[in-house]
Amino acid sequence: MGSILISNGTIITVDKDRRVLRNGSVLVQDDRITYIGNPSDAKKIAQAEFEIDAGGTLVLPGLVDTHIHLAQALIRGCADDTSLIDWLQKFVWPLQGNFEAEDGRVSAELCMLEMIKSGTTTFLESLLHSRYGFDGIAKSVEGSGMRGILSKTVMGLPGYGTEQSIMHPGMVEDAETCLREVEDNFERWNGAANGRIQVWYGARSLGGCTRELYERIASGARRLSTGVTIHLSEVQEDVHYAQKEFGKTPAEFMDQVGLVGPNVVFAHGVWLTEMEWGILASKCASVAHCPSSNSKLASGIAKVPEMMRAGVNVSLGCDGGPSNNCYDMIREMKMATLLQKARVFDPQVVNAETAIEMATINGARALGLQKEIGSIEVGKKADVILVGLKKPHLIPAFNPVSNLVYAAGGSDVDTVIIDGKIVMQDRVVKTLDESGIMREASERGKKLLERAGTGVASKWPVI
Amino acid sequence: MGSILISNGTIITVDKDRRVLRNGSVLVQDDRITYIGNPSDAKKIAQAEFEIDAGGTLVLPGLVDTHIHLAQALIRGCADDTSLIDWLQKFVWPLQGNFEAEDGRVSAELCMLEMIKSGTTTFLESLLHSRYGFDGIAKSVEGSGMRGILSKTVMGLPGYGTEQSIMHPGMVEDAETCLREVEDNFERWNGAANGRIQVWYGARSLGGCTRELYERIASGARRLSTGVTIHLSEVQEDVHYAQKEFGKTPAEFMDQVGLVGPNVVFAHGVWLTEMEWGILASKCASVAHCPSSNSKLASGIAKVPEMMRAGVNVSLGCDGGPSNNCYDMIREMKMATLLQKARVFDPQVVNAETAIEMATINGARALGLQKEIGSIEVGKKADVILVGLKKPHLIPAFNPVSNLVYAAGGSDVDTVIIDGKIVMQDRVVKTLDESGIMREASERGKKLLERAGTGVASKWPVI
Repeated sequence: MGSILISNGTIITVDKDRRVLRNGSVLVQDDRITYIGNPSDAKKIAQAEFEIDAGGTLVLPGLVDTHIHLAQALIRGCADDTSLIDWLQKFVWPLQGNFEAEDGRVSAELCMLEMIKSGTTTFLESLLHSRYGFDGIAKSVEGSGMRGILSKTVMGLPGYGTEQSIMHPGMVEDAETCLREVEDNFERWNGAANGRIQVWYGARSLGGCTRELYERIASGARRLSTGVTIHLSEVQEDVHYAQKEFGKTPAEFMDQVGLVGPNVVFAHGVWLTEMEWGILASKCASVAHCPSSNSKLASGIAKVPEMMRAGVNVSLGCDGGPSNNCYDMIREMKMATLLQKARVFDPQVVNAETAIEMATINGARALGLQKEIGSIEVGKKADVILVGLKKPHLIPAFNPVSNLVYAAGGSDVDTVIIDGKIVMQDRVVKTLDESGIMREASERGKKLLERAGTGVASKWPVI
Repeated sequence: MGSILISNGTIITVDKDRRVLRNGSVLVQDDRITYIGNPSDAKKIAQAEFEIDAGGTLVLPGLVDTHIHLAQALIRGCADDTSLIDWLQKFVWPLQGNFEAEDGRVSAELCMLEMIKSGTTTFLESLLHSRYGFDGIAKSVEGSGMRGILSKTVMGLPGYGTEQSIMHPGMVEDAETCLREVEDNFERWNGAANGRIQVWYGARSLGGCTRELYERIASGARRLSTGVTIHLSEVQEDVHYAQKEFGKTPAEFMDQVGLVGPNVVFAHGVWLTEMEWGILASKCASVAHCPSSNSKLASGIAKVPEMMRAGVNVSLGCDGGPSNNCYDMIREMKMATLLQKARVFDPQVVNAETAIEMATINGARALGLQKEIGSIEVGKKADVILVGLKKPHLIPAFNPVSNLVYAAGGSDVDTVIIDGKIVMQDRVVKTLDESGIMREASERGKKLLERAGTGVASKWPVI
């Protein structure tokens, strides 16, 4: 792998001291950060094989997206401005229920291209259906150079519940098969690619599993020492459902079945209550906050500052192609701050610094990787991104933290290093065939739309 | 000026039929659009001197930003995550109160660079203080190629009111001088640059003018046949102030002093009531909605769909460098849709099409320019932008309208034509010296910060 010297940048460390270093350098040796600080001292330590002049750029930890759907990049923009039930029943499920494995693979590659180009280095994929082709996707993650957690969907329709009656048949999976596939995928892929790939359980939300199945997921995760991610309290109906079916709030129920712990990421958490924050905080579970998706689908606005004050680790997620509709964590940071300020009428809540923490170290903590990634610190994995500042919208650079969160966007990311390897330089992705993937995604997307026969939600005639 | 043929693009017309034309062409002759439709027919009509291949791009009307502060680009990121009173008193006012005319000019140029690079072709500047140097800014607008309405600040501290006690002395102006300068500026600049420049009254918000001064602004605007823009009901305190001082709601008071009409743009309008929407709608006044700014400063969330249903013309505004902190109308469109969906729990309100209307034809209507700009129609001014679609985050292109609003950002704008002239091509701005302005803005920003002695609001130590 060799060594890389990133010199003369403005470094947002997100380390314990939360320092911003003007004119600092970062030395990368193999897959680790071995020095941070004075540029000339860095050169004394090692003769780097490769030097990146970071003058005029921000250097920061790679962004960690803790809630995405790889297979939804291919259905971007298919279902906007519709009711949630139409969104699922008329568009997302029929489209995804018609996926072939090659659609899954190309969607994942399109999604990873977009993530790399906007500075995301690590992601948590939350629901991989068998039909998307797990192995093909895992191979693409390996080739992409990204750090990815792949959660295989686990579901088992209980004969009751919100999802049973409406789900597209192409999306239904059998519980036993799901559980077995998680173990098989874990066996084949967990820890692969120098540890960049992990395999988790992707439990469907409350209506999609029985109590017994949740218990089996919990015991499976314990046995494999792996993680679980679950959509929880995304919409108010989840709360009603949990009360009706289990006589408990969603988090209480999750706790009862053994699914609240440091290895669990709950996506959304919009409708969690104070009592539930207490459960999550006491057992070190995390919430992946998805402000754009929650707004666009009108699910509600999660009580982020209150959750954080209660001790919950809150990270960020972009969700998916029909719910956001982009995978840009820099834009998601701004959305996270603005939405909370508007909600509580206080311009001081969820400040720019907090947004950066959510997108980096909190994300790392959610994934149990806080000792490995999420900050620029000696000994950690070299997941580092460079954001170019020499642009009209990022000048003056009085406050680099502010410019990153409030004025930059993913397209300002110049260079991405993951696991000590340069994955993108000067916006050229080195690990994936950008034009080939874009062409294939356009073609496959078109065919998928025809096969599913859904059309696209749209108000203006396209002629 | 000559002729330009834009061929083979996907055209979002925003015309009366609200059509989207796949593989369409737009012919520009001199400063006007003379043909829209079939590419081969376009070639029959005229031999264009210049052809732009718009394959793989969206072609749409130039965006109209109806509420900006040119002089705040230079103080971007100086005052984040602070209370509103600190934002004004500790940062924005002392910084702007220390402006020299050259600061005003370079800030305007920086701001226009950013606007052009993100697809804005027309703007309404709302408050130009004399100290920013009106002539220098107007000359820059002329040179930039943009269509700009420059509103000279009019204020006269009444000896009472919210602004009197706290305003930085460098920001205080005398009413008589203000009124005279509007007339002088109007005389010199209104209609200049082939009509691209207009001069309006920029009345300060409620606490900054007396009743008599508002009445004089109204009669002045009638006499000059020009427009007025006013910050109205941005914060709840505005409502309390109007009730206390005038015994009326803000819009009722404005109506009483003759300042509600088709030539008036009220910025923000967050706290306007149903009764006030009725007043604005019946007299064809507009509201410039600023979703990012209202969220970031925690002013509240304007009731946009309700205002629109009441018949108010609602356009969009990016506001300023310390309140947004960027001037990107494409991002502002997404914010406008997401914020309303989250507020009213309905994913169908303020859809992507409505957001585009707000950013184009509604903006044109707000400025009284609906017959000249705001859509791609034969006979209108040729203010046209091209957005490049061959990027991972804009694929697949099932729905061009959706991709523009929900997935694109200003940096996806490739080419900008204003008044029939190519102002930017392939992201190279032809009318302004990009690197020179960025360098000068950085230097002047630094000196300004030192002169004002404000420092910058920031949580993490920069070392």
